[in-house]
Amino acid sequence: MKQLNIVPLKYEDEKLIILDQTKLPNREEYIEISSREDIFDAIKKLKVRGAPAIGVAAAFGLAVSVRGRFEDIDSFEKYLFESAKLISSARPTAVNLSWAIERLLSVYKLSGIKSVKAVEQLLIDEAKKIRDEDEAACLSMGEYGLSLLKPGMGILTHCNAGTIATAKYGTCLSPVYLGSERGYDFKLFADETRPLLQGARLTTWELSKAGVDVTLICDNMASIVMKNGWIDSVVVGCDRMAANGDGANKIGTSGVSILAKEYGIPFYMFVPTSTIDLNSKTGDDIEIELRKESEVSEMWYKNPMAPRDVKIYNPAFDVTPASNITAVITEKGIARAPYEKSLKEIMER
Amino acid sequence: MKQLNIVPLKYEDEKLIILDQTKLPNREEYIEISSREDIFDAIKKLKVRGAPAIGVAAAFGLAVSVRGRFEDIDSFEKYLFESAKLISSARPTAVNLSWAIERLLSVYKLSGIKSVKAVEQLLIDEAKKIRDEDEAACLSMGEYGLSLLKPGMGILTHCNAGTIATAKYGTCLSPVYLGSERGYDFKLFADETRPLLQGARLTTWELSKAGVDVTLICDNMASIVMKNGWIDSVVVGCDRMAANGDGANKIGTSGVSILAKEYGIPFYMFVPTSTIDLNSKTGDDIEIELRKESEVSEMWYKNPMAPRDVKIYNPAFDVTPASNITAVITEKGIARAPYEKSLKEIMER
Repeated sequence: MKQLNIVPLKYEDEKLIILDQTKLPNREEYIEISSREDIFDAIKKLKVRGAPAIGVAAAFGLAVSVRGRFEDIDSFEKYLFESAKLISSARPTAVNLSWAIERLLSVYKLSGIKSVKAVEQLLIDEAKKIRDEDEAACLSMGEYGLSLLKPGMGILTHCNAGTIATAKYGTCLSPVYLGSERGYDFKLFADETRPLLQGARLTTWELSKAGVDVTLICDNMASIVMKNGWIDSVVVGCDRMAANGDGANKIGTSGVSILAKEYGIPFYMFVPTSTIDLNSKTGDDIEIELRKESEVSEMWYKNPMAPRDVKIYNPAFDVTPASNITAVITEKGIARAPYEKSLKEIMER
Repeated sequence: MKQLNIVPLKYEDEKLIILDQTKLPNREEYIEISSREDIFDAIKKLKVRGAPAIGVAAAFGLAVSVRGRFEDIDSFEKYLFESAKLISSARPTAVNLSWAIERLLSVYKLSGIKSVKAVEQLLIDEAKKIRDEDEAACLSMGEYGLSLLKPGMGILTHCNAGTIATAKYGTCLSPVYLGSERGYDFKLFADETRPLLQGARLTTWELSKAGVDVTLICDNMASIVMKNGWIDSVVVGCDRMAANGDGANKIGTSGVSILAKEYGIPFYMFVPTSTIDLNSKTGDDIEIELRKESEVSEMWYKNPMAPRDVKIYNPAFDVTPASNITAVITEKGIARAPYEKSLKEIMER
């Protein structure tokens, strides 16, 4: 029985400790967060990454930043609001970040409490709630996901939607960890996920450390491992899903979905309901972020790996069409096509 | 009118000059080859790469290695055979290498000539023939390929089957250069081609230098550029084609062929007849070379990009099924399905 013991963030003895993901896979280093500058820096520099993990870290980060600094509620409140604004600005496009910060502020505002000590405790308690809810959602997705998998299966994943991207367990890797704890003996394959190499650096690290059998491949090897008969299921995360079931996720995911369809392999997308955006009708409504050219040609490398003046196209995400998704796994249950109907039903639960 | 002026190898003023491909894309350096040790080293260390280019380089390399060293034919012959053996051993699996060396030796043996000077000239002349035949084959593939393309097309390629992999023009990039010389204004997209990055380092370099519009992408972005409507044709090379039209090429090619089929984009494989192996019935008969794990996790990088002990699968090639290939372009004409029949016909021309 293997127990998953990797969490990207710990709140223990009134201290907030964060795994520095920028040091992986070469060093496993934890840093203590005790000020708003610390947490701003950790989020900004991707020491903590993964939408749910950022939300949890930001909530605890705000709570510890304001603690023990003031006696009077007015000075406290001023510092709280300033700190909230600063921390939220670390990654402006990360929805979970501003959502978590806003949640702490509104709990304070609605409480009417005027005792600094009591508010400090309130914020810590709310951060714990956010963490516990995320962990529960991941566990729930894990159980639903596991119902679709069988012991001994070969499983391909892309990017990192694992334990270090969430409070614990991850989204698409949650069933892998739950299965592993129950002796399922999965054989994982991790796409390296160019250009940022989240698969090579993070997914293989957390799976190995948890004792899961994992093999790293380049993204362009997904076809041959499927052809070899080594893959029984594909599991991936999701950054935003439209009402029709089109799902935006890390660049390359749509290609993997097409290969899975070609080889007759089920393709499962793990989507917390917070990620489902019923206001986007289809994937065409989802804007694709373009990132710096140098991520492709220079980052990580000893020398530039392309001519200096060559054009580079570097989209961070692509949209997997609903028609390629065998099932959508949420914390509230499993949705299947037609997704217009099933996603709406799940959101109403 | 753009003229392609990049050749990986020049024989001028009795000197053999080779482009050192290991220095690309950061430096364009040419080295002179004047001994068997020079050419052995150049092939071994991939300073010259690409099956046809290796054959041409080996032939000239042998010819210049033995020139001007001996007066008597016996000493000359001994040195010639020893040198042939040494050079052939530089990359034992490269078919074009041993083929080119054997061709020079057999021309000598069949000639019956006993004058060292005359044999020296014979070998140089045969090396020139090999080069000229390869260039002619590339030009011919270029013309046939160009008949399938239209001005302004977006074209995706994988790995490097360009001018620096051959005597001149390349296989699958030959129609691109011919079209470019005729004002076709193609828009090229180059997969970076992990793990060895031939697309990023070599293809973008030679296309840019020849004035062709080229955009570099990561392998996992092929799906989104097709989805964006930017690709009208895919062109790729081939390392070995079976009698039924299954074609082994650089790892990732089969995945690109599946994406092309999904998006309804023609997929063209450029296959010199020397690459067609009628003794292999299907792609299942083609053995796939596995390469070192460190190519994926450590090569090029400042730091290892995966945990030290993680398993890595690193196949050098995959097999594109005949059913995904719209047409096979050879120097003798274009073959279409059913390939059992059309390839046989072409081989008999």
